Amino acid sequence: MELSKRQETIIEIVKNDGPITGEQIAERLNLTRATLRPDLSILTMAGFLEARPRVGYYYNGKTADRILAEKITRLQVGEVKSVPTVVSESCSVYDAVVTMFIEDVGTLYIVREGGLLEGVVSRKDLLKTTLGGQDIHKLPLGVIMTRMPNIHMVQENDSVWLAAHKLLTHEIDSLPVVRTIQGSRGKDYEVIGRFSKTNVTRLFVEFGEGS
Amino acid sequence: MELSKRQETIIEIVKNDGPITGEQIAERLNLTRATLRPDLSILTMAGFLEARPRVGYYYNGKTADRILAEKITRLQVGEVKSVPTVVSESCSVYDAVVTMFIEDVGTLYIVREGGLLEGVVSRKDLLKTTLGGQDIHKLPLGVIMTRMPNIHMVQENDSVWLAAHKLLTHEIDSLPVVRTIQGSRGKDYEVIGRFSKTNVTRLFVEFGEGS
Repeated sequence: MELSKRQETIIEIVKNDGPITGEQIAERLNLTRATLRPDLSILTMAGFLEARPRVGYYYNGKTADRILAEKITRLQVGEVKSVPTVVSESCSVYDAVVTMFIEDVGTLYIVREGGLLEGVVSRKDLLKTTLGGQDIHKLPLGVIMTRMPNIHMVQENDSVWLAAHKLLTHEIDSLPVVRTIQGSRGKDYEVIGRFSKTNVTRLFVEFGEGS
Repeated sequence: MELSKRQETIIEIVKNDGPITGEQIAERLNLTRATLRPDLSILTMAGFLEARPRVGYYYNGKTADRILAEKITRLQVGEVKSVPTVVSESCSVYDAVVTMFIEDVGTLYIVREGGLLEGVVSRKDLLKTTLGGQDIHKLPLGVIMTRMPNIHMVQENDSVWLAAHKLLTHEIDSLPVVRTIQGSRGKDYEVIGRFSKTNVTRLFVEFGEGS
């Protein structure tokens, strides 16, 4: 909806000083109530303003919020996920740190043959380990990683809202995006992506650009 | 704007099969064109649909995007910032890591008297240092920190969009929120907050809840 300059001014007035009567708005703009009537009906019908008898017009932020919420819950993880960085369980802590710097990621996923998820290590896990005084050239990731089934994951068709919510709830920086595979010994999870706070930030910036 | 069930159905039809004439929409719904007329005018005026003579109605996604963009660019850093964790330049790398774990933050700000910003260290900087094999109990942060004026900052009244954009552009996890102080030797920056990808993620989740 393309708002006219006058309609935007009306919204501003109501936002700041609502509830306010049509009479008062007209006075502010040096216009007659009759001139304003079409603008006020359009703004009310479009949900920007609400009108209550004997109270006046007030600003209704709900429309925008609902549209926004819909957009965020409709977007799927698969549409925005990044490429995962994976290593094997036998990789040393030292090599893991180097890989993290080279790939510039905050989390590594540990997989076995077929890209099946075994564990996760974060920058925080590695920092804690390097502080411990052990020989990080010999220590394998398998010793320090968070192991299945204690890993939080998302699927490609989960909403980005759900994924962002998981990042906050579990206080982690990234989630492996996985595909469920029915193996002979039960369920396995193939790592097919990475979803992090950086993905959320990128979306946020894109939204702000109106794209 | 509260849409009726029928209005939502119309939007769905136009989204999927637009451009489509009012005639055709009416047929789909087993209604007359006259019955539909008020709904179609409201949806068009509210900007959900656009109508073109001899073409028909089509869905206009722009409204939502514009509303969203406006909301994101209007929000200010000051409204959502977190409490900063500050230490002094003489703090050892070891103590810095411990502080980071205790406070559960990804970045520490190094300040001098008056809370004036001197430097920044990230989890990444500390990880690199612990790997270096130096005595981290004796090494002061002043040696490894990123120093003024090479620090990216934001002010309280900057938009969260700008702040999120800076996080991405400079590939950093957090920004100090500062207040400019005119000192005797030039400008100083008092640290009054922290803005990180976690703040962005929190906003994103709130938006998705429609709040």
